[in-house]
Amino acid sequence: MNTFGQLFRVTTFGESHGPAIGCVIDGCPPGVTISPDDFRDDLARRATGRTRHTSQRHEADEVEIISGVYEGRTTGTPIALLVRNTDAKSKDYDAIAQTFRPGHADYTYWQKYGHRDPRGGGRSSARETTMRVAAAVLAKRWLNEKFGVRVRGHLAQIGNVVPRGFDWSAVEGNPFFWPDASQVPELEAYMDALRKSGDSVGARITVCADGVPPGWGEPIYGKLDGELAAALMSINAVKGVEVGDGFAVVAQHGTEHRDEISETGFLSNHAGGILGGISTGQQVVVSAAFKPTSSLRLPARSLDMDGQPVEVVTTGRHDPCVGVRATPICEAMVALVLMDQALRHRAQCGDVGDVSPRIAPGAGKR
Amino acid sequence: MNTFGQLFRVTTFGESHGPAIGCVIDGCPPGVTISPDDFRDDLARRATGRTRHTSQRHEADEVEIISGVYEGRTTGTPIALLVRNTDAKSKDYDAIAQTFRPGHADYTYWQKYGHRDPRGGGRSSARETTMRVAAAVLAKRWLNEKFGVRVRGHLAQIGNVVPRGFDWSAVEGNPFFWPDASQVPELEAYMDALRKSGDSVGARITVCADGVPPGWGEPIYGKLDGELAAALMSINAVKGVEVGDGFAVVAQHGTEHRDEISETGFLSNHAGGILGGISTGQQVVVSAAFKPTSSLRLPARSLDMDGQPVEVVTTGRHDPCVGVRATPICEAMVALVLMDQALRHRAQCGDVGDVSPRIAPGAGKR
Amino acid sequence: MNTFGQLFRVTTFGESHGPAIGCVIDGCPPGVTISPDDFRDDLARRATGRTRHTSQRHEADEVEIISGVYEGRTTGTPIALLVRNTDAKSKDYDAIAQTFRPGHADYTYWQKYGHRDPRGGGRSSARETTMRVAAAVLAKRWLNEKFGVRVRGHLAQIGNVVPRGFDWSAVEGNPFFWPDASQVPELEAYMDALRKSGDSVGARITVCADGVPPGWGEPIYGKLDGELAAALMSINAVKGVEVGDGFAVVAQHGTEHRDEISETGFLSNHAGGILGGISTGQQVVVSAAFKPTSSLRLPARSLDMDGQPVEVVTTGRHDPCVGVRATPICEAMVALVLMDQALRHRAQCGDVGDVSPRIAPGAGKR
Amino acid sequence: MNTFGQLFRVTTFGESHGPAIGCVIDGCPPGVTISPDDFRDDLARRATGRTRHTSQRHEADEVEIISGVYEGRTTGTPIALLVRNTDAKSKDYDAIAQTFRPGHADYTYWQKYGHRDPRGGGRSSARETTMRVAAAVLAKRWLNEKFGVRVRGHLAQIGNVVPRGFDWSAVEGNPFFWPDASQVPELEAYMDALRKSGDSVGARITVCADGVPPGWGEPIYGKLDGELAAALMSINAVKGVEVGDGFAVVAQHGTEHRDEISETGFLSNHAGGILGGISTGQQVVVSAAFKPTSSLRLPARSLDMDGQPVEVVTTGRHDPCVGVRATPICEAMVALVLMDQALRHRAQCGDVGDVSPRIAPGAGKR
Repeated sequence: MNTFGQLFRVTTFGESHGPAIGCVIDGCPPGVTISPDDFRDDLARRATGRTRHTSQRHEADEVEIISGVYEGRTTGTPIALLVRNTDAKSKDYDAIAQTFRPGHADYTYWQKYGHRDPRGGGRSSARETTMRVAAAVLAKRWLNEKFGVRVRGHLAQIGNVVPRGFDWSAVEGNPFFWPDASQVPELEAYMDALRKSGDSVGARITVCADGVPPGWGEPIYGKLDGELAAALMSINAVKGVEVGDGFAVVAQHGTEHRDEISETGFLSNHAGGILGGISTGQQVVVSAAFKPTSSLRLPARSLDMDGQPVEVVTTGRHDPCVGVRATPICEAMVALVLMDQALRHRAQCGDVGDVSPRIAPGAGKR
Repeated sequence: MNTFGQLFRVTTFGESHGPAIGCVIDGCPPGVTISPDDFRDDLARRATGRTRHTSQRHEADEVEIISGVYEGRTTGTPIALLVRNTDAKSKDYDAIAQTFRPGHADYTYWQKYGHRDPRGGGRSSARETTMRVAAAVLAKRWLNEKFGVRVRGHLAQIGNVVPRGFDWSAVEGNPFFWPDASQVPELEAYMDALRKSGDSVGARITVCADGVPPGWGEPIYGKLDGELAAALMSINAVKGVEVGDGFAVVAQHGTEHRDEISETGFLSNHAGGILGGISTGQQVVVSAAFKPTSSLRLPARSLDMDGQPVEVVTTGRHDPCVGVRATPICEAMVALVLMDQALRHRAQCGDVGDVSPRIAPGAGKR
Repeated sequence: MNTFGQLFRVTTFGESHGPAIGCVIDGCPPGVTISPDDFRDDLARRATGRTRHTSQRHEADEVEIISGVYEGRTTGTPIALLVRNTDAKSKDYDAIAQTFRPGHADYTYWQKYGHRDPRGGGRSSARETTMRVAAAVLAKRWLNEKFGVRVRGHLAQIGNVVPRGFDWSAVEGNPFFWPDASQVPELEAYMDALRKSGDSVGARITVCADGVPPGWGEPIYGKLDGELAAALMSINAVKGVEVGDGFAVVAQHGTEHRDEISETGFLSNHAGGILGGISTGQQVVVSAAFKPTSSLRLPARSLDMDGQPVEVVTTGRHDPCVGVRATPICEAMVALVLMDQALRHRAQCGDVGDVSPRIAPGAGKR
Repeated sequence: MNTFGQLFRVTTFGESHGPAIGCVIDGCPPGVTISPDDFRDDLARRATGRTRHTSQRHEADEVEIISGVYEGRTTGTPIALLVRNTDAKSKDYDAIAQTFRPGHADYTYWQKYGHRDPRGGGRSSARETTMRVAAAVLAKRWLNEKFGVRVRGHLAQIGNVVPRGFDWSAVEGNPFFWPDASQVPELEAYMDALRKSGDSVGARITVCADGVPPGWGEPIYGKLDGELAAALMSINAVKGVEVGDGFAVVAQHGTEHRDEISETGFLSNHAGGILGGISTGQQVVVSAAFKPTSSLRLPARSLDMDGQPVEVVTTGRHDPCVGVRATPICEAMVALVLMDQALRHRAQCGDVGDVSPRIAPGAGKR
């Protein structure tokens, strides 16, 4: 199961310290313009080593288009993308190949397969997410050109710090994807202190999609929210997913939560733009919780391959907060889900024209 | 997309007020003993009308086994189950067929399909979940007989009320699936007050699966947690999903969250029994947030099919808290995911025997 | 794997002598008009007992629409159809429950599942094809209304007898679906002689689809011809499948086979309307070979469940040529494939408009 | 749809004249030993340019293992294989980029996608089959090590020439995969004459799989024969597929066709080792018909991209009979189907042990 999507199918492959990582995108509509350069921006946003606040692995992340593109446009055949690994330092990991790192997939891969690639976490490394971001470049482009859909994310919490203000224009101006520029020095100090202490902290990311027309999503088991939940939960370190108000609904009243409607459109967006698994035409809003990094300089108790107690200490390069650079990955997964649902909707309901009445998105948009 | 699962595939069909609802289970192993009586308990746990705290629709929920069972045992061919609808009162819904109820799927189905069955919510009714519970009876049985897996759930919050104590044996003794019997009178009063006020409230449900062996789950896009998230989010009214500590991880430190390991086993279970998308052998723990019922006696603003403003008031039977009877549905989805992953694991890794070292579940179990 | 299709998904269920057979159609576009009466004609064409030349089981084949249709039109939700078995005479089969009938699936089901329903062949009975024909009624209707596609079949050979003339209008006028009315008495005598002798014979069926636009079919592994081959081979008793000239191509020269093109369109149709797995806009032509019935009054050697030699003699009702009534089943499978491919094409290439030049179907049409 | 298989999933990518072709194998069991060298033999058997009787494109076909293998054994993660294109001469094809070659997929790709890569047939080139053969190396190895399955094929007819004798040991000793060594000079003369005349001819290939245990194959829509039919029909130029006696069954009597059983096993194998879609334990036998090459020195009438009449003459390198080197491709597809079915059987019926009685393969083996 290394394939994501039903009709816009992205199959990723590759290990952290293998010769390359890559993906095959099957089902992409023909005629989309694309070149190797088009992947640069989003891959740079996701990349490690951009600031001192993320892992110091430096990868060029140059995308080679192997197939599916002719004269700068997609042909409808599978698009294979390849990114060579150039800064994989296997020696960093030799010492811990014989242990099961707490909070990592070492033990579970071992139990599942009986044979594993321990170098840099092998297949379970976040390096795999590079290809999700790359594949989503095509999805974002098609969604935007065809429907005006725009997918944007931001960090919404880190430890106990939450944004005081909110401004989309601030988000891309700092390494945290934080929506309030005035808090950036505070966050930098926070990260520096964590790095110094050898510990880490969790984070929360929110992604908003504007321009999604009503009607996307397949009810029951292919619901738009169900697919978004699976997509976000498939990202390394994610332990929780919310749509709209998420867990806050537990303490809400029905009169508060249900988004009423007037002639000017929806009067609120507690639902996050999805009802019955289908988009309402409002802003689609989802959030994900990222656990704190498990690889730390502070020692942890574990067992080795012989079942003997060992102390695990991470000496290599790692993030004090993996959520810091996960915003582009969350955006990518949302874009892949929307792309897939757009094609699925067109397959079954391509006959259905503009249906009236159409309710305006109205209030609740960020 | 009315099919759930890859190898243990459950396809449900039917509308709230159609002649019947049903499902087809494809991929069930042969030789599982089953009879119509075996569905009674779980369907009764899910049923409406059991107490005054749930919707007053009364359905016999008699399961007819149409196929796939011969002489009391499954044959490996598809198992079709049928449940006739006997208490569907369409007249209750005639008045609102021309409006879009806030918080419901009326508008989104209309926009998607251009033609919809408005009676009782049609396909988007929670009545569909009857068949999930029925299908899960087979999954629970096979998982238990084959691996000793036990799947249990309970209500974990309703409005702002949380359990004071915890006792599994209390859960089945009250209509709320609440783990502290001493709080039941308080909850009953809470529900009565809500019903009287005409409003509703949300809830949170937690499901625990014991006995899941290490190694289940497909990394990357078929992760055990990813599939659980999709499964729970596919239930009507769910707006958030958590694995293990869920959103609490945002404020946790890595030294706290990562579950350390000693010779006696795992020392905690913040991860909820899943690492890298694969089970660790610990208790699998997931939670879901249910939004408050949207159908209320208190009027809401909306539009009708002509785009004109209307006031929507629900006069029929409805729950003050849909989460109250959702525990068996959450259990069912967890069981269906585990069943499917068990078969998927056996397909790819059936060669892999008992791998040492095996780490004991250890601490953190509820 | 009881589901056929990727986007127009038909899941069938039911055994020959169980309470009912049925299917669930998932992915049907909304708005298609349908009523129980609409299934009558095609089910009658497929039914046994219509003439003395087919098995004498008499089933009413009344279709109950359980879901997915509201006010006479499909809603986009799953359409469940149910047909009760009313003439299942289990006593006919008791005697042979302990043997493996040569040429039947008795032994293979036993080896695969370790538990089987022997009554009337259980799941492996041709009774299952009833639901394929029912599901195809919707596919045929949508394909015809939307694209003008027409799917028709005929018997093309029975034993060594081949049609002398060809007239579509003759096909529906005789119980053999034979395209030359003048040969019908000869065929009736042939069947009577076979029945008298206790033996059986094979047959060949050809299906033609007119009006298929160019561009349907997914290259490589979802080719239109690949899917047609799988579809026809999935019918009981089929042992060979051909597209266009089929096995005759082995002895053809390239100059003969390649269908040249002029301004008036294609100059021949050896390819059967498919190139590179994609429709050309010509008539799509496929054929299937049906093996002779294995259940015969003439004794056959076999083993019983204890591995002891037994003589198998069939005394119940059976066809001297199963191919005689298989034409509607072949048509159904072709229609299901085309429907599925139409939706798949629309999903990926819905953007692609009328592309010029468009080549006329031209010659080679029957 | 560039993915083949349900559980052993092979996704191929790449165009004839792009930088590389490749595949991703997902679902391979862990622990299979494999190295780049292991692909050499089968890729050489399939390669063009090995003799004067096949197209003169010379490719090194060096396989790079990108992922999924660690220390010489598969890890259970996706295995990506890459083969660079080194002898792609685009200039050969520039002249015909503006025409639709008769018998080729030029027109159908154009109509489907509205944008195509014309160089060497792009994605529709037989070059894609290189990766099928590569992927099948893993399947063949696992099937053989685990079950002793052996998959072998041979040319069974070319034009009107059929084998006079039959000897498996002769097959690999000549470039035609012909089972009677004494006829090889005759075939060489035949090919030389065809090449001289500028014409081509069709062929028939038969593949036999020994050692397949009873019970593989999923009844109804995932039948072993259905999947084999789809697999073979997915190969370029195939127009017909047969299982066992294939189209010969049309003229057979039931008493002849049904394979009787005695205590020594099956007494014949007209069924080709499959009943009810499930393997019987006998030799599995399938055949495919390959059409004659359409690219010829002899001119053909066609249209250009402006719809104007043109004469198409092929001047580049091409085969007089594409079937000559297709035997390894047919074997590969059979192996991929068997591998997939083996995993599917293990998923659903892994509980089912050795079931008695077991019938010996008996007669009918080649």
